[in-house]
Amino acid sequence: MTLLLSNDDASALLDMRACIEALDAAYSDVAKGFAVAGTRGEILTKTDDPDAAYQLKSMSATVASLEMGSVRINSDILTWPDIGGSRRRVKSPRAPGKRWTGLVLLFSTVTGEPLAIFPDGVLQRMRVAAASGLGVKYMARENARTVALLGSGWQAGSQVLAVTAVRDISQIRCFSPNADRRRKFCDDMSRQTNTEIIAAETAAAAVDGADIVLCATNSLDPVFDPDWIAPGMHIGCIRDGELPPAAILACDRVAMHDPKSISTKHYDVTHGLHVPDMDKQAAASTDLDFLATVPTAFDFAAGKAVGRESPEEATCFLNLRGLAVQFTAVGSVLYHAARAAGAGRDLPTDWFTEDVHP
Amino acid sequence: MTLLLSNDDASALLDMRACIEALDAAYSDVAKGFAVAGTRGEILTKTDDPDAAYQLKSMSATVASLEMGSVRINSDILTWPDIGGSRRRVKSPRAPGKRWTGLVLLFSTVTGEPLAIFPDGVLQRMRVAAASGLGVKYMARENARTVALLGSGWQAGSQVLAVTAVRDISQIRCFSPNADRRRKFCDDMSRQTNTEIIAAETAAAAVDGADIVLCATNSLDPVFDPDWIAPGMHIGCIRDGELPPAAILACDRVAMHDPKSISTKHYDVTHGLHVPDMDKQAAASTDLDFLATVPTAFDFAAGKAVGRESPEEATCFLNLRGLAVQFTAVGSVLYHAARAAGAGRDLPTDWFTEDVHP
Repeated sequence: MTLLLSNDDASALLDMRACIEALDAAYSDVAKGFAVAGTRGEILTKTDDPDAAYQLKSMSATVASLEMGSVRINSDILTWPDIGGSRRRVKSPRAPGKRWTGLVLLFSTVTGEPLAIFPDGVLQRMRVAAASGLGVKYMARENARTVALLGSGWQAGSQVLAVTAVRDISQIRCFSPNADRRRKFCDDMSRQTNTEIIAAETAAAAVDGADIVLCATNSLDPVFDPDWIAPGMHIGCIRDGELPPAAILACDRVAMHDPKSISTKHYDVTHGLHVPDMDKQAAASTDLDFLATVPTAFDFAAGKAVGRESPEEATCFLNLRGLAVQFTAVGSVLYHAARAAGAGRDLPTDWFTEDVHP
Repeated sequence: MTLLLSNDDASALLDMRACIEALDAAYSDVAKGFAVAGTRGEILTKTDDPDAAYQLKSMSATVASLEMGSVRINSDILTWPDIGGSRRRVKSPRAPGKRWTGLVLLFSTVTGEPLAIFPDGVLQRMRVAAASGLGVKYMARENARTVALLGSGWQAGSQVLAVTAVRDISQIRCFSPNADRRRKFCDDMSRQTNTEIIAAETAAAAVDGADIVLCATNSLDPVFDPDWIAPGMHIGCIRDGELPPAAILACDRVAMHDPKSISTKHYDVTHGLHVPDMDKQAAASTDLDFLATVPTAFDFAAGKAVGRESPEEATCFLNLRGLAVQFTAVGSVLYHAARAAGAGRDLPTDWFTEDVHP
């Protein structure tokens, strides 16, 4: 049987600590050649809506030691509204019931069969944060206690789970532009993690004196000022553009999730639609070319590089470029947990296989 | 609702003529910039079976005029047995019930939702043959009447459907190494297509005097001798290596399905397994570099190139590199036919969508 799981199943079954450990093990496998981090394809094409584009995105990866491979598919309607003076990329929920379409299919490398199908939302949140958690694990000071969190959305919530899983955190100061939203976030996440999480009036106030700064926004503009960098600080981000190039250049040690990850982009057929993502690509700073040679999360996991050599270093982990290997690793945790708990819905595997040679 | 369809549904609903027309229209769209032919990723990785490798393959494409995109996924156990003195690549059916895993997911570019899910087997056969049919349509002589068919498998059967859909064929002579198998093939396909199809004792005998030669084997070695080329002949093939480079070079006019199609291959982690496909890649003839600039099926469909200028030309259509745009085009034919016929099984679309921003 092929297991159909929901985001609710994933929320109930996935533990952040287990996700970080699974990612660490899978990344070590990638570095040793036992996993294939895989390919990524993006298509952006026109729709009848002049303010929107359709994006079909897929990525796949195998982890031989887990005997699993996965394909993650996103079928999104993209828009770029102006929210609070800054341009945001927003996926418009236009599937029936105002829903989004993001799927992971998990396959057995032993039989080829589809083991499970589940939405990508909760895994997306967990795998991004788990990678940020690895950045903190390998690059932040062991005695880091205070965190500045820029952002109060969904990804920000999981960053709290990740940083508290790998360091003994005493206080988190959160800033985001909307005061009501950030206050509610602090209340909710304090309760959920049993950690002191307080709202800051400005980003500068949140960052001042923090051991760790985590950016988890969906802003296309920088949210961090290079002048805020202090000795011993660790800075993490999850999006291109959150950190200005000057901030990255000002750190003593920079690592990247995976600078070599292959992304084949097809930005065609947009027929006059203005797509800010494309501007950003064109304007990418050549000062950052050195990022192609910095250590990766794979290097850290395999012990091929160290993330910090002294307490004074300012370190930076660019958690950019999602990797399908994350979905294979975290998906494997979810699959085994669901089988053990008897969760989900069994669908006939014959629905998704065939008796003719393809 | 998301429509789940089977190969039986596809067999009953897909007409070869409709598939060729859909492909022709979609290719014309690609040439005009209204469709994105898309990306393709292949991962080859080790399994515990030393004689097998696991391959995870995905490709995706959108056709804006159809308002659809598709992702095709193959999750295969590959083996390379020696059959009748020649090395074959065989996908081993190891999913429960000795089945293969090949899937197409069809999405709406308007809402993002998954419209349908179906196995790729019957579509695979139809789309490969439909592309060969386009090669014959644009490159063979209008008065071509006789066909040599090399191969008697599944793909060979659909080549018969395709060639008889675009030319008025009076006789097909079929050769394949196994005499029983080719005889049975001739009997079956004659009945099915109401065309005279007879078995030939040798490939040379099948080809001698034929107006059209279609190779549809799964051999990794050449099956056609350059000396067999005659003026006015059209030759088609569906696999790398079926035609020796000398045969391609000897033709007056050569076209390719799509030389620019992007294939990102990850041939890693095979751990000592001898993979003949990799040898072939390394040994590719540099004499064939000119193939990068020959006309494509897209050019023909859009009227940007002609396939034949005189009755004496020997023409060659290399129907290599499957394209996801074929699955979008043929998948759209299948989807609309199934909806019109009330075929298939409706699954809740909510199973494959989500209420959280991915």
